[in-house]
Amino acid sequence: MEKLLVRAVRGEDVERPPVWLMRQAGRHIPEYREIREEYSFLEAIKTPEVAERITLLPWEHYRPDGVVMFSDILTVLEPLGFDYRIESGVGPVIEDPFDGPSDVPDDYAAIADELDYVGALLERLDDAVGDETSLIGFAGGPFTLASYIIASGSSRHDEIRQFRARHPNAFASLLDVIADAVLDSLQYQIDHGADVVQLFDTYAGELAPADYREFLLPLHRRICAGVDAPVILFVRNMAGRLDALADADPDAVSLDWTVDIADARDELGDIAVQGNLDPQYLFGDESFVRAETEQVIEAAGPRGHVLNLGHGVHADTPMENVRAFVETAKNWEYEN
Amino acid sequence: MEKLLVRAVRGEDVERPPVWLMRQAGRHIPEYREIREEYSFLEAIKTPEVAERITLLPWEHYRPDGVVMFSDILTVLEPLGFDYRIESGVGPVIEDPFDGPSDVPDDYAAIADELDYVGALLERLDDAVGDETSLIGFAGGPFTLASYIIASGSSRHDEIRQFRARHPNAFASLLDVIADAVLDSLQYQIDHGADVVQLFDTYAGELAPADYREFLLPLHRRICAGVDAPVILFVRNMAGRLDALADADPDAVSLDWTVDIADARDELGDIAVQGNLDPQYLFGDESFVRAETEQVIEAAGPRGHVLNLGHGVHADTPMENVRAFVETAKNWEYEN
Repeated sequence: MEKLLVRAVRGEDVERPPVWLMRQAGRHIPEYREIREEYSFLEAIKTPEVAERITLLPWEHYRPDGVVMFSDILTVLEPLGFDYRIESGVGPVIEDPFDGPSDVPDDYAAIADELDYVGALLERLDDAVGDETSLIGFAGGPFTLASYIIASGSSRHDEIRQFRARHPNAFASLLDVIADAVLDSLQYQIDHGADVVQLFDTYAGELAPADYREFLLPLHRRICAGVDAPVILFVRNMAGRLDALADADPDAVSLDWTVDIADARDELGDIAVQGNLDPQYLFGDESFVRAETEQVIEAAGPRGHVLNLGHGVHADTPMENVRAFVETAKNWEYEN
Repeated sequence: MEKLLVRAVRGEDVERPPVWLMRQAGRHIPEYREIREEYSFLEAIKTPEVAERITLLPWEHYRPDGVVMFSDILTVLEPLGFDYRIESGVGPVIEDPFDGPSDVPDDYAAIADELDYVGALLERLDDAVGDETSLIGFAGGPFTLASYIIASGSSRHDEIRQFRARHPNAFASLLDVIADAVLDSLQYQIDHGADVVQLFDTYAGELAPADYREFLLPLHRRICAGVDAPVILFVRNMAGRLDALADADPDAVSLDWTVDIADARDELGDIAVQGNLDPQYLFGDESFVRAETEQVIEAAGPRGHVLNLGHGVHADTPMENVRAFVETAKNWEYEN
């Protein structure tokens, strides 16, 4: 039988909701913080044995139904010609800053060459736990990656919308070439062991609705249709526009915590949903975490639901609450 | 006859949409930047003659249908006992940092004493242009002000949700006392000349839907019902939850640019709408600005629409595009 997470994403009958957490391999785990004293973030993601060790930390602690490779939504930037570094307090910064429409790349370097460390990581994970849990690959989406290319710092989703207003053709070309590279990267991950892939176009909800439909939707459709494994699509702040995400035809939509998950089920029809507990709820007491998690599971209903947070786990989250969250799903039995 | 903006907010028949811009008295105007070389932001808002000069700059340049007092959404923090300063790169910082549930105030100082500079400003504005345009007062909403009280920097809407998870009773008490102070502040503004007031609970869309309904909606209702002038309610990222905003019963809902304004009209029924051009569109060329502005006006339909942006004007916005935006509304004639 297929793995639980894959079946749930496909909307097949399942006994209980599978569970994993976005950013589960991260700062809330003490061993992660220890490893990161030795390796920078980029060193860690580019060194398969280190990335494997980090990926498996939440597996060892919580045994989730999905293990998400420890990597970065931005890895595709390098094959596109935009090397980057991580600057403290700012986040990712492009080494050679984008200089306007003439800097839109025509093409990108071979994914298998540039992102070989991602393939190597997935092969190691497949050997280590590939039979026991689902391996989840991912990439940033075109709008989100374009935002990082255009500008640094917290105003980047403002800057990219300004670029859209000033240079609509260059904006469209930039998104287009990124989409091709993202599609190749996701298929490469699937070829190397990923069971499911998630497309994080986190910032795309910042676009006006007509702009999402004009510029992004065709690219999201192309990516969802172009890969040989189930695709989960995550965009923040799309409550009220779930119909547009449905038109991208992903296997599942990952919902942030500002969406009522029962309403989302009604709007999305046969498309599965993932989510959507507020990550900040994991700072409440354990009984609160269990009760709120149960409520999400009940509101989502049986089949077609992957339990997750509405965004990534925060750094200081108490591990016992992450455990309570995972256990709530693992102990659940759908009534039939 | 009542002023155009007031009539539109009330959903009465109007000849054309009234227009103003959030943050219209700000950095995009060169004279503002000159004045700010002499006065800090807090000095400027607390000195009525300076605040008047700044408020009137966009009036002199564009003749909008609404003149919004130059002030701060956070002024109510001081009567609540939270003095603050503006730190470069961080934003507002509470002088004596919030120390947990025991720091929730029971009460607040008299608005007329603490915010006398706001009353003095509105009286000056009423004398200067009160017959020719609508005077708009405003305050931050309870959730947004609570976010600023709890934490500094860009993670503040994460921190306030964490506070909600950890201390739900203190969270509710904090919002409650803020709501009372906000209500008094808005009524004080009306008593001193404001024709319309806008409640900026910008961050409230970051709450989970059930939390908005449990904690904020009753307070938004109380504020909307409690003041003797039309109230415009602005919350970012409420697409998909406009029904909840409608339940707060404001006279108008100010929409950010991620909402389709025609869909919003359908959902909001008789409640007027304000908005909602993406502020970044004002960086496009002038014909783009005019065309997109016309599209917003057409999509919103005749009556019950105040043309505005979906958020504040950005600092470097070209003045000719602001002018084109305003003129598009002023030259419009609704077909009947």
